[in-house]
Amino acid sequence: METKKIPYKIYLEEKEMPREWYNVRADMKKKPAPILNPTTLKPVTEEELSSIFCEELARQELDDTTAYFPIPEEIRDFYKMYRPAPLVRAYCLEKKLGTPAHIYYKFEGNNTSGSHKLNSAIAQAYYAKKQGLKGVTTETGAGQWGTALSMACSYFDMDCQVYMVKCSYEQKPFRREVMRTYGAKVTPSPSMKTEVGRRINEEFPGTMGSLGCAISEAVEAATSQENYRYVLGSVLSQVLLHQSIIGLETKAALDKYHIKADVIIGCAGGGSNLGGLISPFVGEMLRGEADYKVIAVEPASCPSLTRGTYAYDFCDTGKVCPLAKMYTLGSSFMPSANHAGGLRYHGMSSVVSELYDQGLMEARSVEQTAVFEAAQTFAKVEGILPAPESSHAIKVAIDEALKCKETGEEKNIVFGLTGTGYFDMVAYGKFNDGEMKDYIPTDEDISKSIATLPKVN
Amino acid sequence: METKKIPYKIYLEEKEMPREWYNVRADMKKKPAPILNPTTLKPVTEEELSSIFCEELARQELDDTTAYFPIPEEIRDFYKMYRPAPLVRAYCLEKKLGTPAHIYYKFEGNNTSGSHKLNSAIAQAYYAKKQGLKGVTTETGAGQWGTALSMACSYFDMDCQVYMVKCSYEQKPFRREVMRTYGAKVTPSPSMKTEVGRRINEEFPGTMGSLGCAISEAVEAATSQENYRYVLGSVLSQVLLHQSIIGLETKAALDKYHIKADVIIGCAGGGSNLGGLISPFVGEMLRGEADYKVIAVEPASCPSLTRGTYAYDFCDTGKVCPLAKMYTLGSSFMPSANHAGGLRYHGMSSVVSELYDQGLMEARSVEQTAVFEAAQTFAKVEGILPAPESSHAIKVAIDEALKCKETGEEKNIVFGLTGTGYFDMVAYGKFNDGEMKDYIPTDEDISKSIATLPKVN
Repeated sequence: METKKIPYKIYLEEKEMPREWYNVRADMKKKPAPILNPTTLKPVTEEELSSIFCEELARQELDDTTAYFPIPEEIRDFYKMYRPAPLVRAYCLEKKLGTPAHIYYKFEGNNTSGSHKLNSAIAQAYYAKKQGLKGVTTETGAGQWGTALSMACSYFDMDCQVYMVKCSYEQKPFRREVMRTYGAKVTPSPSMKTEVGRRINEEFPGTMGSLGCAISEAVEAATSQENYRYVLGSVLSQVLLHQSIIGLETKAALDKYHIKADVIIGCAGGGSNLGGLISPFVGEMLRGEADYKVIAVEPASCPSLTRGTYAYDFCDTGKVCPLAKMYTLGSSFMPSANHAGGLRYHGMSSVVSELYDQGLMEARSVEQTAVFEAAQTFAKVEGILPAPESSHAIKVAIDEALKCKETGEEKNIVFGLTGTGYFDMVAYGKFNDGEMKDYIPTDEDISKSIATLPKVN
Repeated sequence: METKKIPYKIYLEEKEMPREWYNVRADMKKKPAPILNPTTLKPVTEEELSSIFCEELARQELDDTTAYFPIPEEIRDFYKMYRPAPLVRAYCLEKKLGTPAHIYYKFEGNNTSGSHKLNSAIAQAYYAKKQGLKGVTTETGAGQWGTALSMACSYFDMDCQVYMVKCSYEQKPFRREVMRTYGAKVTPSPSMKTEVGRRINEEFPGTMGSLGCAISEAVEAATSQENYRYVLGSVLSQVLLHQSIIGLETKAALDKYHIKADVIIGCAGGGSNLGGLISPFVGEMLRGEADYKVIAVEPASCPSLTRGTYAYDFCDTGKVCPLAKMYTLGSSFMPSANHAGGLRYHGMSSVVSELYDQGLMEARSVEQTAVFEAAQTFAKVEGILPAPESSHAIKVAIDEALKCKETGEEKNIVFGLTGTGYFDMVAYGKFNDGEMKDYIPTDEDISKSIATLPKVN
């Protein structure tokens, strides 16, 4: 077959953009285990879910049989502002590595939120608006999700209340200001605005907060205000559904140039990017149409797939959200300092967990100094300063490309570049100063937190 | 004529990318006045210029007759990493304003330097490399130029020494770290590394530096090290030549959809973006082929076109660079605090100045609170948080679009969105807190600095 010359960047045309999200669960013979009501420990119903989430999102969360969901026109219009995202042929990186492999990356960082999070934020804001809600609440750690949601709510003229982990609120004032510029109300958590916040402040005076605590405050804020709901940026199946846009565009761009991916690599925290990127490819595997080597990359400091256990666990440290069966280190696991804030999550999306358990992908954990070295190599030749999270995928893509150099194989390696590192310069500064350290939890650390798993299992 | 549906983003294909830069001086009957040797006050020769700048760049600087310069393949390859930049149809902004006007912006912020500066940085690094130099030196204020040059030098594996105004070095550590990640040596200026730096530190203990002082240090560093040259990111005619890629791509994208621009708007500091954006359009005007309304937008705090005088002046406060005839407030003018650091320059590119003097464009000055309001409006509907510099153009584009709303005219308004504001969140924070102030120099301020113009005039 004659192949067209592949440009540095493959942009789909507007009319080639996906008009439907793909729900990989529909093609799974063995479905992910149902999520459970944290009080009754029974599979949660749509009605129960709808008290926390918007109705349409609750429906999407529980639907594991519908393969395609039409993307509403309003959302597609918003997507057109920053999508299609380019699929980039990393010619310069290939040359630098001297590899015969062809490296491609799907770049999701060309929007002000700086990451793929916007893909789901706009969907969640849209359904909230459509339901006639006044606003939504959420939590944010490093701030990517909060920023994305602020942008989405601003677009639909909705109130957006973000509980931001206090230490990030103070140490990352830039993301806070981006959110405020988009009109969001950003509250350092724990705050005195909620009951749970006041209680935690009283119990632990001077605490700098945690994601678990911020979730609890955001949920309380949603349920105690009329016409508000809570939204979440990762882990959930609805989020993976929205993020399938990443994989669908990637596949369409590859198909356009008759490229068959051999290896597909994504960084994995809660699983939103990885799940979205791999969904259409794994779908083909599930249907027996194609085969790919899929690799999930997680930080060695928070290795839920590589060292966790597959069991029901709480999705949040506050234990207010439904329980999910997932690869987990235990919701009480406290990941040691790692600059990839977006990957510091104790568990893994139940969809990704089940796919991993079925042997449809492998997982690797990498240490952060090696990740920042890969990030620097990439930045120097590809001109994009990557987010620490995304750089986990870069690291493994480089490893795979170097293997091809040894074997002489001309593999097509595709990875997800989820975002940019412009708000992560404190971490880069540490790396530049040679002060970055690697942290790996001991077996004892992990056993201890796994021992506190709920009794459902 | 039937028109194609215009997408949100017009991307040229790789093969449609310009292969030559356009030198607008070639089409000017009355050329910009020659630049002068600061010692002899005579027109500077190529040989003299070559002691500071690379040979090819000195040649480009002085050539006012060659209309097109081929872009070397190595530079075009680098351009392909982040170009073509999209020409965006601002559908959402139009809807928000309720204007019949069609608004387009050329977005130059999709690269890690965050601005258009990279277009010239890569060219200057390339010619330095080709000449066999070991490295280059430069100064940076806010850091866009320093970042761009760091990226360019890293790509060609050259040494890059950046003298960064000390107050920026300390207050904007993020940009500093981006430069360091790209391998640049960043020195706070005034430093103890140069004679001029030591002298200034002795005379003004504790000084936080100035751009003028940083230029002097960078020039001294270039001339005192073997195989080094000094490079500059704006004002010079060579820079405008490289930046013509902006205008050429813009015009090609408009032509592709049979769109005739009516109004073209650019922010103006030293003139690199404005000059690059308007060059091909003004070229048509000079050749009598078309007519456009061209508007230069500058900050009210530093109004060189609207309140300056057209005369020979020093390009730098240190008075080591050649003199240029330009609209200037006097090189001793100290612009009051304005968050658009990239527009705080006392003068204006001699090419832009001469075009303005010939009546080929108009100029407007705008105040920064109004600029940030426009930036926020834009960010909320177009999803890009703009740089304060770029937002000057947004402000006037909105003004023009609102005029169309009054008159009912369906004009095509095109403006340059030079970059993103991700490293300007301190300024946005002040705006969010309602603490931003406007500063306008008094007539006396301006007369005082203009009185110190050199005696050439």
